[in-house]
Amino acid sequence: MNYLEQSFSVKFDYKIYFTSSLFELGNPLLADFFKGRPSAALRKIFFVIDGGVTEKHPNLQEAIKTYFNQCQEVQLVPEIRIVPGGEASKNDTALFEQLVEAVNVYGIDRHSYIAAIGGGAVLDLVGYAAAVSHRGIKHIRIPTTVLSQNDSGIGVKNGINYKGKKNFLGTFAPPVAVFNDDRFLETLNDRDYRSGISEAIKVALIKDPEFFYWIEAHTAALAARDPESMNYLIRRCAKLHLDHIAGDDPFETGSARPLDFGHWSAHKLEQLSNFTVLHGEAVAMGIALDSVYSFLTGLLSEEKALRILQVLSALNFSISDPIIQIKDSGSAILKGLAEFQEHLGGLLTITLLTDIGSGKEVHEMDHQQLINASAYIAGFTKENTALNSIRHES
Amino acid sequence: MNYLEQSFSVKFDYKIYFTSSLFELGNPLLADFFKGRPSAALRKIFFVIDGGVTEKHPNLQEAIKTYFNQCQEVQLVPEIRIVPGGEASKNDTALFEQLVEAVNVYGIDRHSYIAAIGGGAVLDLVGYAAAVSHRGIKHIRIPTTVLSQNDSGIGVKNGINYKGKKNFLGTFAPPVAVFNDDRFLETLNDRDYRSGISEAIKVALIKDPEFFYWIEAHTAALAARDPESMNYLIRRCAKLHLDHIAGDDPFETGSARPLDFGHWSAHKLEQLSNFTVLHGEAVAMGIALDSVYSFLTGLLSEEKALRILQVLSALNFSISDPIIQIKDSGSAILKGLAEFQEHLGGLLTITLLTDIGSGKEVHEMDHQQLINASAYIAGFTKENTALNSIRHES
Repeated sequence: MNYLEQSFSVKFDYKIYFTSSLFELGNPLLADFFKGRPSAALRKIFFVIDGGVTEKHPNLQEAIKTYFNQCQEVQLVPEIRIVPGGEASKNDTALFEQLVEAVNVYGIDRHSYIAAIGGGAVLDLVGYAAAVSHRGIKHIRIPTTVLSQNDSGIGVKNGINYKGKKNFLGTFAPPVAVFNDDRFLETLNDRDYRSGISEAIKVALIKDPEFFYWIEAHTAALAARDPESMNYLIRRCAKLHLDHIAGDDPFETGSARPLDFGHWSAHKLEQLSNFTVLHGEAVAMGIALDSVYSFLTGLLSEEKALRILQVLSALNFSISDPIIQIKDSGSAILKGLAEFQEHLGGLLTITLLTDIGSGKEVHEMDHQQLINASAYIAGFTKENTALNSIRHES
Repeated sequence: MNYLEQSFSVKFDYKIYFTSSLFELGNPLLADFFKGRPSAALRKIFFVIDGGVTEKHPNLQEAIKTYFNQCQEVQLVPEIRIVPGGEASKNDTALFEQLVEAVNVYGIDRHSYIAAIGGGAVLDLVGYAAAVSHRGIKHIRIPTTVLSQNDSGIGVKNGINYKGKKNFLGTFAPPVAVFNDDRFLETLNDRDYRSGISEAIKVALIKDPEFFYWIEAHTAALAARDPESMNYLIRRCAKLHLDHIAGDDPFETGSARPLDFGHWSAHKLEQLSNFTVLHGEAVAMGIALDSVYSFLTGLLSEEKALRILQVLSALNFSISDPIIQIKDSGSAILKGLAEFQEHLGGLLTITLLTDIGSGKEVHEMDHQQLINASAYIAGFTKENTALNSIRHES
């Protein structure tokens, strides 16, 4: 056969820094980062901030301007852009186009930086705009939620939605750095704070039994928003995600997706709730469902399944919400299984549990057993609530 | 300092196949390619073809349908999309959006393929749509011009224009395979056929003196469209480009761009001519300019500079067109130097020649010497034309 063969590897590396008050003048971390990347070319930096963050941190823009007055390594462009937070930012193509337009207007080139401050959705939007402008402008992520600091904000994916389809447009494009600032977590409401914990539980269940038992032992501290416990959780969860990305198939060319444990129903649930249920809340419900399914199909012991349900309950996740309940084979949630299969390209691959910390891939799920699993969770919750009432009374 | 470090490499490999009549039923190459990539999932293939190609090859769509009736490894989607050829296809964002819409309508997932048949512009458009849909659908390139078969179609870049800025949106995304079918070259007009040769001269001048002397010895055969000579030229040029991409900095994170030899003025020239001058024609003029500039600034011998001009002339490139002439310091071409500098991010880097096959980077160009070089080329052409007239007369 007559051919030439092309083969090369591209190396990617970046650091995830943990800090407090990133833009405080006394904090040299960000300035040092730019000093460590000298360049003969003039470099600019364009900040895009989640509107939910500026609302809680009204002085943030001023702090950034003051910081870059001191840090002359890069030139702050005249505008700091604010975009709406949450999934809405990924649904509105105009926001993407306006970012590209800003790259054009401010002359932001491949030596320059676009920094995003916000939750996972805003990071996804800005990351995508950065990735495709000039075939990739250097991108800095400053995640502000538990979920984005331990999972979505530290990885290599970006994307926006298209015609209601999640992440229909996007790329794999590693950032040049991630800065996790724990002060942003203080202003999260309880739902946002808690919902990020479910991805930590998920990755612990698949990969790290010790971590799961640590979470089990710290549910009270986490529920009470103990900063030290949360910092530990985020860092360990981030490490597990990073190792997974680096170790296996960073740009997901294959079909195996163990980190999607608990996610097939979660995706559907988010959609059914019109995104009023947060991603992390939906994942908690999905973990409960697939853990009990693992028990009912003989893969996992009942004791382990119950420990998982107890951890989720202790963190106040509403795992038996009517919206996740599968009453019969016509349930809307079950349609999520077919959609997930389509999303994977025809071959269904679901990760279940054989133990705390050990996953196993299966290629079909039994609808009746899913109905049974849903009923089991409803029963557990009822009992547990009753138990809690007794405890509270005593 | 408190951080986690992420580091991984992503391996990319693909083959560039050389063939004749790719879609002839007796040609097993494409069918074998898919057989060699078995999959449990149903895979689809969506073809997008350059309108300039279907015009010359009216039976192409039918041939593709017949071929995939026999090849059951992948399922041809019901539509074969035709898009306008040439730079126009990259200027119209609607074409990009319609491709993304087709991905949605036909349910083309990450296990499926989008194949593009056409010149470099169409490959760039389709490659970009494939790269960002579902974070990357497998992309097959079937380049149909000399330029795309030896250079633009075999590499890792894609892109579309935005607000008149070339490749403003794009990514680095290697294809899964490239099929160079030499039958497509037969129907090219002389300008398109010839213009692709200038990129071969360029890469030879920078990297491969033997190849330059081979071209010099084969100008008559190439001008006469001898297929064997052209196949050799394409393959050797493709190999040099592939080696360059693999060896150095595949996704161009640094500033060095030796393959941009002769391109700073070519880009400007294309724009000034409103793209009536073809890219390859503009590159030929740019090569002439920077080669003579290399001689006038003492880097290159006059004999070598003259040999370059003679090769370009023998291939009928119009290297002293009034549009490239630099009469004074107010010349529009000189503005291209500033624009190229801006494009590179502030630090000008230009490759000049120290010998046939050897480049050297410089960071400034003298306007007066560029004016002198332009006058030198005009003089050479005049003399050469006079010489040719004498020869023709004799």
